Amino acid sequence: MTDTPRIAIDAMGGDAGVSVTTEGAARALKLDPRLKFLMVGDEAAIAAALAMHPALKAASDVLHAPEVIAGTDKPSQAIRRAKTTSMGLAIDAVKQGHADAALSAGNTGALMAMSKLALRTLPGIDRPALAALLPTLGDNDLVMLDLGANTECDANNLVEFAVMGAAYARIVMGLERPRVRLLNIGEEELKGTDEVKEAAALLRDAPYLPLSFDGNIEADRLGRGEADVIVSDGFTGNVALKSVEGTARFITDLLRRAFTSSFRSKAGFLLSRPAFHMLKTHLDPNNHNGAVFLGLNGIVVKSHGGADAGGVANAIGVAAKLARSSIARRIADDLARFHAHHPASAAAK
Amino acid sequence: MTDTPRIAIDAMGGDAGVSVTTEGAARALKLDPRLKFLMVGDEAAIAAALAMHPALKAASDVLHAPEVIAGTDKPSQAIRRAKTTSMGLAIDAVKQGHADAALSAGNTGALMAMSKLALRTLPGIDRPALAALLPTLGDNDLVMLDLGANTECDANNLVEFAVMGAAYARIVMGLERPRVRLLNIGEEELKGTDEVKEAAALLRDAPYLPLSFDGNIEADRLGRGEADVIVSDGFTGNVALKSVEGTARFITDLLRRAFTSSFRSKAGFLLSRPAFHMLKTHLDPNNHNGAVFLGLNGIVVKSHGGADAGGVANAIGVAAKLARSSIARRIADDLARFHAHHPASAAAK
Repeated sequence: MTDTPRIAIDAMGGDAGVSVTTEGAARALKLDPRLKFLMVGDEAAIAAALAMHPALKAASDVLHAPEVIAGTDKPSQAIRRAKTTSMGLAIDAVKQGHADAALSAGNTGALMAMSKLALRTLPGIDRPALAALLPTLGDNDLVMLDLGANTECDANNLVEFAVMGAAYARIVMGLERPRVRLLNIGEEELKGTDEVKEAAALLRDAPYLPLSFDGNIEADRLGRGEADVIVSDGFTGNVALKSVEGTARFITDLLRRAFTSSFRSKAGFLLSRPAFHMLKTHLDPNNHNGAVFLGLNGIVVKSHGGADAGGVANAIGVAAKLARSSIARRIADDLARFHAHHPASAAAK
Repeated sequence: MTDTPRIAIDAMGGDAGVSVTTEGAARALKLDPRLKFLMVGDEAAIAAALAMHPALKAASDVLHAPEVIAGTDKPSQAIRRAKTTSMGLAIDAVKQGHADAALSAGNTGALMAMSKLALRTLPGIDRPALAALLPTLGDNDLVMLDLGANTECDANNLVEFAVMGAAYARIVMGLERPRVRLLNIGEEELKGTDEVKEAAALLRDAPYLPLSFDGNIEADRLGRGEADVIVSDGFTGNVALKSVEGTARFITDLLRRAFTSSFRSKAGFLLSRPAFHMLKTHLDPNNHNGAVFLGLNGIVVKSHGGADAGGVANAIGVAAKLARSSIARRIADDLARFHAHHPASAAAK
């Protein structure tokens, strides 16, 4: 926990590479002048990019990494290159205490595997989870996890995700008792898999946790503002998130097609451009960029591979907020309380 | 297989009840004058509704059912009332050969349980699945299954769903070799659960099936027209479908909010009303109403509870199309071929 966090940036990650990551960092610094950076990657490329951002250059150190993890690299290949790649060295900087958080827009599976190996999980955590913020029609965003780190999960994993997601919601949204729900195919208690039913029973029985467990939620209510944290296994969460993203893009494409179908429609589009701008702002994934690996001894944020400079700046903001918090201690404390009530699940660790 | 199919309609099912189901049947009859109906439910209410539709009345028989399955009834309760409820008697009419298909807009779980008990599964089928048509940006609709009938599925179940979905796509869309894909969290072969990976291996190894297995598909590509049939377990499929529905509604709500935010936006909206109409038509679930329980000895179609008369007419059209086909024989033949190559999976039945 620090007030002047230093963020290690995998400068080479993402579809657009070093120009977008430095531009994003420069924007983040303008919004939050106390930030420091460790730019990790090809020294010459970073130096050239920093030359265009004097303020960022003054706030940054550079760590040379000769290699880059490719999008096609398997996690098992990636972990063998932890000491030579920009992603590996950014994570290592967190491990060594040279940075307070790491950020990468590279290969998600590799980032997860390298982070888990280097930073290890928090006491009491079986598996880390990938959490992201999604827009809702309510007052707050929504924390969703796991979004793909764990294909299959048991009831205890889901409880851990609930605790981690609630800690994250308390920090990023300032809520005291976030409303937590389990993603399910019906609201009734008897619906769903055994794992989900058992997790619901465990959470109902844990009023001492700093969260309000509100039962199941169906996927058509995701964005209605009825929950602050939605928990699922990584397979289901990934499918739900991608269904949402795909549908948003599908409708945008239909709208574009509809609005270019006639002169009258085009004129209508021009007239209502501010309305479309509002819609676009609300749906733009860059405004919600920055997924977090929760449950590790250290902060690792995943920026979207296609994020623009504004998106990178948002993700850096998430990393800084977490670095200024004591999320690891909060999660560990909450889980210790849970395990004190469930000695069997604690002993299994 | 008949050219003048008789559809047993649970006239009492759905949020709006008998007035919408009869109005829907009347519309379907107008489009397809060779249809016959067996209207099942409260005799007096049906008689009153039919009085407003003389042509439908002439094409219909009425079967009195004193009771109705409620939306809150558990499947286990519902099956005990198969002989007294409109839903139960509509299914029974198919079993007895008095109708070629049953249609209900009532409780999905009850409809599934009652249909399975009364009609039994086809030879070689372990579990029936719920399939629906979804709109895409491509030339054809998309068949998705399972949408919630089976919470947990093994690899053989997924293969059966692929065979059933392909047979359905051949019939409703007239395709020769539908492109089948498994819903997964990545396109690569090593992604996903053991069940999905094993199902992929089985399908890759079955070129004799009348389908083209094209591997995995991610949920953000659902509506892009890249597959004719998408297969998943019922938990994942239900979450994906509801995420799509919820996001479509979310964006529609945002658009409404945006377009009423200023006079200028309102004027733009009025000017581009034809474009919005096009969008609405494409997304309107009534235009894709009629989910099918595949794998039973008989045709059962589920109409959406909130469908309007046009939606009911669409669902009746689906039922009629299936009644005129030999879907049961096609599915049984295809599965027999699969089991001939996999004696172990056949022996397990």
